[in-house]
Amino acid sequence: MQSTKKNFLTSFIIFFLLLINSHAVFANKINSLHPCKNLVFYFHDIIYNGHNAHNATSAIVGEPAWGNKTILASKNHFGNLIAFDDPITLDNNLHSTQVGRAQGFYLYDKKDIFTSWLGFSFVFNSTEHRGSINFAGADPLMNKTRDISVIGGTGNFFMARGVATLMTDAFEGEVYFRLRVDIKLYECWR
Amino acid sequence: MQSTKKNFLTSFIIFFLLLINSHAVFANKINSLHPCKNLVFYFHDIIYNGHNAHNATSAIVGEPAWGNKTILASKNHFGNLIAFDDPITLDNNLHSTQVGRAQGFYLYDKKDIFTSWLGFSFVFNSTEHRGSINFAGADPLMNKTRDISVIGGTGNFFMARGVATLMTDAFEGEVYFRLRVDIKLYECWR
Amino acid sequence: MQSTKKNFLTSFIIFFLLLINSHAVFANKINSLHPCKNLVFYFHDIIYNGHNAHNATSAIVGEPAWGNKTILASKNHFGNLIAFDDPITLDNNLHSTQVGRAQGFYLYDKKDIFTSWLGFSFVFNSTEHRGSINFAGADPLMNKTRDISVIGGTGNFFMARGVATLMTDAFEGEVYFRLRVDIKLYECWR
Repeated sequence: MQSTKKNFLTSFIIFFLLLINSHAVFANKINSLHPCKNLVFYFHDIIYNGHNAHNATSAIVGEPAWGNKTILASKNHFGNLIAFDDPITLDNNLHSTQVGRAQGFYLYDKKDIFTSWLGFSFVFNSTEHRGSINFAGADPLMNKTRDISVIGGTGNFFMARGVATLMTDAFEGEVYFRLRVDIKLYECWR
Repeated sequence: MQSTKKNFLTSFIIFFLLLINSHAVFANKINSLHPCKNLVFYFHDIIYNGHNAHNATSAIVGEPAWGNKTILASKNHFGNLIAFDDPITLDNNLHSTQVGRAQGFYLYDKKDIFTSWLGFSFVFNSTEHRGSINFAGADPLMNKTRDISVIGGTGNFFMARGVATLMTDAFEGEVYFRLRVDIKLYECWR
Repeated sequence: MQSTKKNFLTSFIIFFLLLINSHAVFANKINSLHPCKNLVFYFHDIIYNGHNAHNATSAIVGEPAWGNKTILASKNHFGNLIAFDDPITLDNNLHSTQVGRAQGFYLYDKKDIFTSWLGFSFVFNSTEHRGSINFAGADPLMNKTRDISVIGGTGNFFMARGVATLMTDAFEGEVYFRLRVDIKLYECWR
């Protein structure tokens, strides 16, 4: 009886070690249903309209047949592609200290309502954050909150994955808007 | 002997609990070599050609030096960027009930054969599916099947990862095409 | 005493099996703080300038109000969107055997320094590699090294995740550049 139990335990342990091995070194990676990191930022977009070259942070770089490069197109801007390099701040003040830049594009992609598709990065190079967070997803911007994906990260955000919730915090006509971004990472390696 | 075994068991359990801890709460996440979710959809693209504004679902918004906004460019459309907002259906009928919208862009990126790069989302807001699935990848569209990546998701598809297989189910000249999309998720959190 | 231990062991094993079950089949997936795959490639970009249609591998397909389709725009090319289909080689020689193609886009997105945002794939179809690796991220290209994300993969690179380090290996004016790409995968399923 004792011997049986001993054999059983041994094979159990071997099986267990094999399992660990198949998992490799999980050590520093955390997967969790609760965010392993939670960050809130604001970013500010001032679109080029032909007269504001000095302080514009974005510009139309693609447009449909019925569009041009200095006025967002009719039909809810369908087909307008905008390149941006927007300041990131910790609060909702455009003039607060910049903690990084939001860089990439948004593409208006629906004729009957404002909706866009986003591909961009938060690029940090401050004492607090170093590295980048990469985002992609659909932004039905008339909704109060919209979720996009954190598809990866580098530096302090190495291999990050998560969800970012966008909220339009302010907009002034078609020239300025400010987004609040609630970043929740569910996979953290650092 | 009994005491040794007891000690051994205790340390074994402690080690084991530490391991669990290092894994954090895996609870609802499933990683599997067999898809944890398998979905099939169709989406329908009708490109704007200058005469079909009423039912077009996509439009040329970028083109090379030799292109324009209403005719796909020569050299296998190299350099044509198309913004789209296409209906998603459960079968291959354009007129079936829409279960969502495919929104984003494709970019023809090869001169000697049709190939494109895709960045888009499936956006659902029905009783069956709520949330979005985000895709990116190369689509060598002359191949019978092509695999792209599911890079993330939100809502019912929170944190999803997987592979989507595209098949051209039909095309009519350069105005209409229909893609069948076989989505296989291998990381499911919900 | 024996009976107690037996019960304990039994419940322990049941708990353990439940845990395995909640993890599903991890079998072939490796997550590791050390790369599970490490690959080095070079790719070569020759941009269309109006006179080199024969050997150009990329072209301007989007530009700001102050740009055009054959000359990269002023203000550090801000707003230039480039579609590319670039040969991949194992060494830094443009004329070496191609092992695949780098396909996608880069978008210059900063006015006061060269920086771009990348969305592209490495597409392999050789005896050594079959499948694709998908990338996204910010490329502050004046830095010696820049990290972007591997956001997914197909075929041999099924479900891959990781980080790719870009280095500008050479450039000739505004027509040719060569990037060295150090790919480190930290999630491998195959």
